[in-house]
Formats: sequence, structure tokens, C-alpha cells
Amino acid sequence: MTGFIDLERMERTRATIHRAGLDGILCTMPENLLMLTGYWSRIGLSLVWFPAQGDPALLVPETELDVAETGSVRDIRGYAGDLDAARPRAEMSSFVSDKLRTIKGKIGYEASFAQIAPPPLAGEPHVIDKGYVDMLASHVGQERLQDATDLIYELRSRKTSYEAEQVRRANQIAGVGLKVFKEMVAPGRSEIEIATRVEQAIAIAGMQDYSARSVRAWAQISSGPATAKAWRLYVQTGVRRLEPGDLVILELGTVVDGYWSDLTRVAVAGQPSQQQLDIWHIVEEAQSAAISAIHPGVAERSVDAAARGLIAARGYGDAFVHVTGHGVGFRYHELPPLLSSTSDGLLAEGMITSVEPGIYLSNWGGIRLEDNVLVTDSGAERLSTASLSLTS
Amino acid sequence: MTGFIDLERMERTRATIHRAGLDGILCTMPENLLMLTGYWSRIGLSLVWFPAQGDPALLVPETELDVAETGSVRDIRGYAGDLDAARPRAEMSSFVSDKLRTIKGKIGYEASFAQIAPPPLAGEPHVIDKGYVDMLASHVGQERLQDATDLIYELRSRKTSYEAEQVRRANQIAGVGLKVFKEMVAPGRSEIEIATRVEQAIAIAGMQDYSARSVRAWAQISSGPATAKAWRLYVQTGVRRLEPGDLVILELGTVVDGYWSDLTRVAVAGQPSQQQLDIWHIVEEAQSAAISAIHPGVAERSVDAAARGLIAARGYGDAFVHVTGHGVGFRYHELPPLLSSTSDGLLAEGMITSVEPGIYLSNWGGIRLEDNVLVTDSGAERLSTASLSLTS
Repeated sequence: MTGFIDLERMERTRATIHRAGLDGILCTMPENLLMLTGYWSRIGLSLVWFPAQGDPALLVPETELDVAETGSVRDIRGYAGDLDAARPRAEMSSFVSDKLRTIKGKIGYEASFAQIAPPPLAGEPHVIDKGYVDMLASHVGQERLQDATDLIYELRSRKTSYEAEQVRRANQIAGVGLKVFKEMVAPGRSEIEIATRVEQAIAIAGMQDYSARSVRAWAQISSGPATAKAWRLYVQTGVRRLEPGDLVILELGTVVDGYWSDLTRVAVAGQPSQQQLDIWHIVEEAQSAAISAIHPGVAERSVDAAARGLIAARGYGDAFVHVTGHGVGFRYHELPPLLSSTSDGLLAEGMITSVEPGIYLSNWGGIRLEDNVLVTDSGAERLSTASLSLTS
Repeated sequence: MTGFIDLERMERTRATIHRAGLDGILCTMPENLLMLTGYWSRIGLSLVWFPAQGDPALLVPETELDVAETGSVRDIRGYAGDLDAARPRAEMSSFVSDKLRTIKGKIGYEASFAQIAPPPLAGEPHVIDKGYVDMLASHVGQERLQDATDLIYELRSRKTSYEAEQVRRANQIAGVGLKVFKEMVAPGRSEIEIATRVEQAIAIAGMQDYSARSVRAWAQISSGPATAKAWRLYVQTGVRRLEPGDLVILELGTVVDGYWSDLTRVAVAGQPSQQQLDIWHIVEEAQSAAISAIHPGVAERSVDAAARGLIAARGYGDAFVHVTGHGVGFRYHELPPLLSSTSDGLLAEGMITSVEPGIYLSNWGGIRLEDNVLVTDSGAERLSTASLSLTS
């Protein structure tokens, strides 16, 4: 099996590592391996050496050689024994020793990733611990080991056309769940019934209809008055059953072969009220205004201002309590970009950002609409085609 | 809301920290907070200070005060702003500074956890990075900061009666999925249809029938000849549709309010063959022999030998390619205990271990049966009551 080689990604990575004054970077986090090699590890016990000059090399468990070979790296070493926890560390040490034998300069590593994207083995992800960093330092020396986190996030922020296509695909597959969500919202249904049905529909459609290797969705449902707090970092889906007229918010992360979409839709159980329709309309206008403001070179804060200004002009400025958007693709949330009122960055072609204005009113509820938008050479492309409507 | 205070856990923790020569431990991983406080963080941005003398103290986001108050800790500080990534780190720093003002001795922290149990925010777990460790070191000094990983795993290995009850509950709830699995296995069904249906049934039943706050299941399905490789660390559920006579293995991790079960069942699509029944019977005998060998004080390796010896005596010694069992409860897999032929530990009352012998034959398939077993004062209790049968 021969993989597609993403030359755009390979060249940009080499140039960025070189410009940072590093001889190369060593990465083990599945989300970073995916960006650097096009290969998404199933269990997270792989390692890539990406030099500033020459070709990258991968170390992977033998059980993942089939997936590793679909990526951009030709130099792949397999190892046996991933069930023995000591084994991968020893194999990694030997690999680093081999690859860095003639390297004398500084080496970047993943020092400051405070959140992770789980691999398919999502119930028990492998993470970077002291032993891993000590192993790297034993070969490189502490003083030559540099934190490459910002460099890696910068590389991640601008997707290649291949990567944008993968995120577009994740959006399409997630769209199956958005449709099921609208169908499921009805008086009497419980939050957990709706959430699990959405997750199931996405996994089945993604694997069976879109030929994805691995799909998982993470749905958070809030309903009724609790939607006023749906801006929280995590909403625990509950057992509450919908009552006629309830607002229902679906916050949905979907990972397809390592590429993420992050979408939000709102529905009403039964007939929406005029106030629900009015506030939905303001949020929809705000999202549309923000997306219209997106093009290469525009200030992140001016996109935020487009959404925030519209909501404020309609009298709900205090009710939009979070940022307008954030990067997405190699993880559920990744910065840059960040569309906030205090951002000082510019959008660039290839960035994918969420655009997710919301209005939250205590004693009433909340409405948020979220899509993922690709910055194109001339403007913006909304990656989801799923309906934004409250009712269908 | 007043929580149940697990005095057994509090006393044992204090004594263990004291015996290790530490003045206390600082922990942020949700699985360790759960063990130390009875509180399972939704998002993983909490911190506990557990001193060798006196009472523990918790720092939690305001959005989790309701859950934190259900645990064993009375001294709880809430903070606002978990959406701002810089904020929790600053709050943690201030909390550590306050709590350690008069502490002069060594402090333990979570240096060497190479795998993690995701919190409910499982799509994007928070993890320990260099910045977190640097923050601790800025208050304590690098030389006073000690790796408490072994101490924490030792504390985790023996469950209190309260904790054992929680793992028993996770086993019961997972049992709903084992039953659905047997019902779903039939010619024509796809692996992903079965896996998602099992996950859905467990989440709905756990929340609606058992009043759990948070339930998620992680099902891996392999079928047909691929079951010969079902010993792998991760099996990617696929789109293969079952054919009559296929073996189907369900590997199932289930987390209920932070407590895990790890179960495996096997089914046949249609009528099992005599060879399938024969090998199933050997595996079932081996599991039964291992469980019979379990009591406090017994060598881990002798439990492994009970299962391994039986399988070898029936002529399949080479086909049992992994260990007999491992600890489970605060994570999907946690050591000790480890039931392997090279273990040198002893089982103790309160330990919960998986018992999961298997026979894997290339060009034929594999059968594994896995249950979680509590070491009682006099013997062993199988925590799942779900049928082991191939057919129902």
C-alpha cells in the first residue's frame, strides 16, 4: 500500500524547522504525527524524527505498519511487543539514538501540550511523561532540547489542501449526526437518548458510507433552561426528557481518521416560539456576518467584532459570553487562529476556524450556531452544508 | 449536598504518604483525584493537596462545585474562568502557594503516568505538561519534588469497600451491553453496528436506570478470522458483516462516574461448531481455575499459572499469548496487580483484577473471556453476573 505524499506539508515543515534554528523535531503525540506524516496512530506509541534537512523517519508498532504506510513517510521501522509497557520506551530510545547519531544542533519536542486529541484507543490514551522526556534528554542533553509547541501549533494552523479535504470530510460525516439530531428532538425524548443516537449514526455512516478507517463522535446535549449554560467547557448530557417548546443544543466533536470537526446546532421540541425564532435569527445573522468578514490577511479580532457587533446592535451584547471562534482540525480545539476581541493575529489561507456566536439568557436559555470555515485564497468556505434551521 | 466521606481511603492515604517520607502530594489527574477525594472531575482542571497530616484541600472550577461537594473533601475552593487557558494555571499556582506556605518537606506529584483515564471531557483531555511541572517546582523547588507515581498506584491497587461497590456497579451497567451484544450478533450485522449499539445501550441504561451522572462505554469488535489477533492492544472495529459461524469478540471498557470495568465476551453468529464449543469450554475452565486460585496473600504468578496450566494441559499452551490479568478500577488498566508468569507480587484484600485467559489460533480465530474479580477477605468475588455463554 502506497500512501499519498503531501509535499506541501513536507516542504513547509522542513522550512519552519530550519527557520527556528532546530536540526529537527521528535514527536510522539498522535495529532502531531498526523500533521507531520499523514499517519494517525491507533494507540499512540509511535515516534517521528523530522529533520530540517532530509527525509523524516517513523517508528511504529508492527500492528500499525498497515496504517503507517498510508502516510507520507517512506522510512518506517516496526517493533513488536506493544503490550509490554517497557518495550516501546526501549525501542524509542534506540530509534532516537540511531537517528540523532550525527546531529549536533538543537532538537524540538512536544513540551507544552496541555490538552490532547485521543487516538482510536481513546479510552486510555498514552501521554508524555517524565520518563519520555528523560529518554529524549539522555540522547540530546537537556540544553539542546527545545520546546517546539508553538512551532508545531503554527504548522498545524494552516492546513494543506489535502488536510482541508480531510476536515471537509469530517464535517460531511458529522452532518449525518446533525440531521439525526433534528429528527430525534421531540417531546418525551431524553438527552442521553439523543446524544447516543447521534454518536452512533455518525460512526456507522462514516465507516460504512464514507469508508473511513476510524470514526468517533462526542455529543453533548443540553436542554430547556440549562441551555443558558451551554457555553461551558463541558456539558454533561443528562436524563432530562424534553418538554414541548424546549430549546436543545447539540455540541458535537467528530474525529474521522484523525481529522476533527466541531459543530453546534439548536433545535426546538415541537413548535418554536417567536422569541426563539427571533434570537435564532440574530445568531444566524451574526455567524453569517463573521463568515463574510473572513479572508486571508484579515485581523482575527475584526472577525470577532463582526459577530459581536451585530449581536450588540440587536441588544444582546452581554449575552455573547465567549469568543467567536478557534482553530480546529488536528484536534477539537487548537490555536491559532483565535477569533476574540483581544486577538492580535491575522487569518491566513489554509486556516480552519470555528465560527460560533451564541446568545445565552438566564431564565430563558441559549442558542449557538457553530460551523467550521476554511480560509481560501479569496475568502471563506463553510465546510458543513447541514441546515442551521431550528426545526429541520 | 454533603458527600460520603470514605474514612478508610483518607486514613490509608495519610499513612502511606507519611510512610513515604513526604509532607503531602499534589495531584491533578482526574483518576487520582477520584481515588484521593471521591470526586471525579468533568474537565480535569482541578487540583488536590493531600497532606500527610491534616485534611486535604481541593481547587476546582466553579462549574464543578456541585460534583466536588459529593466527595470526601470539605475544604473546596472554586474558581471562575475555565474557558481561558491561562486562568486555571494561575489559580493552581496561587492555591499551591497558599497550601504549601508552611510546608518544608518533600512533595509528591504525578511524574510518570504514561497512560491516562479520560474524564467526561474525553474528546480533549487535559494532561500534565512542562508548564504544570514548572509551576509546582516554582513553589517547591525541584529537589523537594518527588515522583509519587508508584505510591499512587499502590494506593489505587486496593479498593475500599465504597470503591469496590462503585466498580461492581460499573460491571452491572456494562452487563446491559454484554446482553445487547449477544442479541446483536447475527449473520449480516456489521461490526460497527454492534459496537455502537452496545455503547449506546450502556450509556442509556447507566444514566436512566442506575442514576449514574456520567457513563461512557468503549467497545471493540473483531469478527471471523480476525479474532485470532484480538489480543492486540487495540482492535479497530470495522465494517465487516458477520457470516454464519463467525466468532465475534467484544472487548469492552466502561466508565461509570469514574470507575471502570473491563470485560470480554465471545459469541457466534448462528450455531457454534463443536470446535468453537470445545475451545470456549477450555477458556471458561481456565478462567474458573484462575478465579478459584484467588485469595488474599496468594502469589500473582500462581493465579496466572492456574489459567496457563489448564490451557497447556489441554494442548493450547502456545495459543495463550498474553497475561492472565491486571488491575482495573480507577482506569481501564492499572498495575498492580499483574497476573503474569513473571510477577512477584501477592494479591491483597480489596484488589480488583481482570481474569482474562484466551486461546488464539491463526487461520481459525480467538476466544477470550474476561471478568473483573475482587479479592475478598477469604477468596474472590466475580463482579459481573453476565453470562459467559457463546450463544446467550
